[in-house]
Amino acid sequence: MDIVSIIEKKRDKKELSKEEIEFFVKEYTEGNIPDYQAAALIMAIYLNDMSKEETANLTMAMADSGEKLDLRDISDIIIDKHSTGGVGDKITIILMPIIASLGIPVAKMSGRGLGFTGGTADKLESIPGYRVDLAIDEFKKNVSEIGISLITSNLNLAPADKKIYALRDTIGCVSSIPLIASSVMSKKIAAGANKIVIDLTCGNGAFMKNKHDATELAKTMIKIGDKTKKEVRCVITSMDEPVGYAVGNQLEIIEAIEALKGNMPKDVEEIVFALGEQILIMAGRAKNEDEATGMLRVTIENQKAFEKFKELVAKQGGDVSYIDDVTKFRQAQFIEPVTAKKSGTIMEIDTEKIGKVASYIGAGRLTKDDKIDPEAGIVINKKLGEQIKKGDIIAYVHTNRKDKVEEAIKDIQESYITSSLFKKNTKTVIEVLK
Amino acid sequence: MDIVSIIEKKRDKKELSKEEIEFFVKEYTEGNIPDYQAAALIMAIYLNDMSKEETANLTMAMADSGEKLDLRDISDIIIDKHSTGGVGDKITIILMPIIASLGIPVAKMSGRGLGFTGGTADKLESIPGYRVDLAIDEFKKNVSEIGISLITSNLNLAPADKKIYALRDTIGCVSSIPLIASSVMSKKIAAGANKIVIDLTCGNGAFMKNKHDATELAKTMIKIGDKTKKEVRCVITSMDEPVGYAVGNQLEIIEAIEALKGNMPKDVEEIVFALGEQILIMAGRAKNEDEATGMLRVTIENQKAFEKFKELVAKQGGDVSYIDDVTKFRQAQFIEPVTAKKSGTIMEIDTEKIGKVASYIGAGRLTKDDKIDPEAGIVINKKLGEQIKKGDIIAYVHTNRKDKVEEAIKDIQESYITSSLFKKNTKTVIEVLK
Repeated sequence: MDIVSIIEKKRDKKELSKEEIEFFVKEYTEGNIPDYQAAALIMAIYLNDMSKEETANLTMAMADSGEKLDLRDISDIIIDKHSTGGVGDKITIILMPIIASLGIPVAKMSGRGLGFTGGTADKLESIPGYRVDLAIDEFKKNVSEIGISLITSNLNLAPADKKIYALRDTIGCVSSIPLIASSVMSKKIAAGANKIVIDLTCGNGAFMKNKHDATELAKTMIKIGDKTKKEVRCVITSMDEPVGYAVGNQLEIIEAIEALKGNMPKDVEEIVFALGEQILIMAGRAKNEDEATGMLRVTIENQKAFEKFKELVAKQGGDVSYIDDVTKFRQAQFIEPVTAKKSGTIMEIDTEKIGKVASYIGAGRLTKDDKIDPEAGIVINKKLGEQIKKGDIIAYVHTNRKDKVEEAIKDIQESYITSSLFKKNTKTVIEVLK
Repeated sequence: MDIVSIIEKKRDKKELSKEEIEFFVKEYTEGNIPDYQAAALIMAIYLNDMSKEETANLTMAMADSGEKLDLRDISDIIIDKHSTGGVGDKITIILMPIIASLGIPVAKMSGRGLGFTGGTADKLESIPGYRVDLAIDEFKKNVSEIGISLITSNLNLAPADKKIYALRDTIGCVSSIPLIASSVMSKKIAAGANKIVIDLTCGNGAFMKNKHDATELAKTMIKIGDKTKKEVRCVITSMDEPVGYAVGNQLEIIEAIEALKGNMPKDVEEIVFALGEQILIMAGRAKNEDEATGMLRVTIENQKAFEKFKELVAKQGGDVSYIDDVTKFRQAQFIEPVTAKKSGTIMEIDTEKIGKVASYIGAGRLTKDDKIDPEAGIVINKKLGEQIKKGDIIAYVHTNRKDKVEEAIKDIQESYITSSLFKKNTKTVIEVLK
């Protein structure tokens, strides 16, 4: 088997065999195939597509390319949740304690932020003392003792995916459905999951810009699940504005704490419930969505979810007094209002731009080695569909970088598009596919 | 301007601007764009094609990427001839002295062989003493003194083409019409030509396997000529069998000498005349093909072409006594007959395979640094359409590598396909495009 013949085959729109895909993934991961040959193959895949069979084989080859987490000693049913990324997305931090509070074990690894999207691990770290880098033994021990652990991965999970993803990023091949689907699924499978719910974000702050592509991606991931014997359900959610009101690590933790106390912004609530319902059904704990909704509502209202979160924070070394009193969090030095330049209905918010602003004022990193400022971020004050007058405060910039304030205000103002038309209220959860 | 946006544009089937193409060629040649980004772009070009405008811009950017030869002090009309490659192709060595003997200056640089195709420079070097590596001053001086010089390039002509070609070879992107066309034309333009005749080989021993692709390539090169103000004519010739009878460096030189004396194999004669006619017309020396044919015939018959070749050899340090008496060439140690395995009409000869055999018995190189054996090669004894009986000698293997004889005989036998059908005599020159 040789890589040039494999490239030529995909170039000529032919289907690659399981063995050919495994050969490429193994040899590329080990450094025996140079980046330029991998780049040519990836571009050929981007342009000539992959069958569902090829995509499933790519997924498994990447999942098998490094270490794998085996969680079967904890439970037969290993639930995982994944979001395809967005701005202000603190859903994991709210949803997973809710699920754990209902007695379903949660052993979840999350990533760090890069570019305009944040990362759950960074957000958790803004709680003083919270350790995201537990060893696997401690991670498993916590799950068996309190039913939940949220950490960042220190295993070499799916290294092939890491290498291919980094390459795709430099050659304009990120937005490919088989490549995104296999990337997500390979990581989840390597992390030991057998029931996976995907928050498939869609809109101007997500990788999938429209519903058609999001639906295609959802179908591809469900098909990969079929072929690899994992149950996959996808919830397509709108990312045409930031999730909730807070964007930035500590600001999002505070919003998550409030949500766990029962004060959820409408869009956050929609997403949390839609994902939670599918998890409860997959876990065999609810027969249908209605039953699941009731269970979720009870565990939030009776504060069990909030207590579970506090238990989690304490177990991972975090200072629980911050959870009980969020005013203890030290705020950023500069908190500057952003006022509307025009009156009208908010028709559009450039969500990716909001994410980029949050990033450059300190909340994100441009390269893997940048440090983030937990205090930096944006608090949205006006969301889609709201009526505003010129001069109204539409957002607040929280930053310790005075030199960035002016640019941030201007960029946020430009992110808001208003018109004299009326905007219909739209649902955040667009569709559930299973 | 950034390379990722350029890759994305071509990925999305959009036309690249002149500036974008120049940026890519310059930055890639200088090493500022890594191979993997170039590979992704090249694959996108392969799959999404290039417009004639883009192809012309790519050609000029590559032609301008290094040194350029200026021959305008020799003549206003600088003729060049190029072959897209094949097996047994000694046409340059026969044709160029013929052209020079008619008073048209010939200042031609030729390449070395690689893979299954030979190179004119290697062939000339099998004449004892012949120096192909003249400095540019001596090259020009020879042209002005005797009207001809045939050397190999020691200039850094079109380095972008060299780099892109080497990359294409490793990523399955050789057989792309815009990439082949721009590669050929960039080298010819950098070498100073303004009238270019292309021997566009087509068949199982060429890169273009069928007439359709060859015609497309011809049209693309003519169009590049239009856009860059060079006159281009293409002669499509069949490469479904080796050109003439000799394959291998010294063997081909001997065949070329015989041809210059007037003893041309039928296919060689067809090609030499077709190309020669177009050159005489482009140079303004003949009004039409008939007039040109007559001129070519006369200069061969009165031995002026042969004398010009001897003058060339002498001028470049070669031992002319070998030209006068080809029996002086030392033959290979082993000259082994290859006999037919079956009776019938020869319907097909796997020309690429013949080229590969010649290469591994010593006539070629697999990597740039391999040494070639001038004595090694194959003499074809039976060509397409001939009737043979089992046991008839179809070819002779000339080699100094006894260990390769058996494999060579077997491979040559397998290259010949016979049948009981009758094969219509076909022309070697398929079409002339201008």
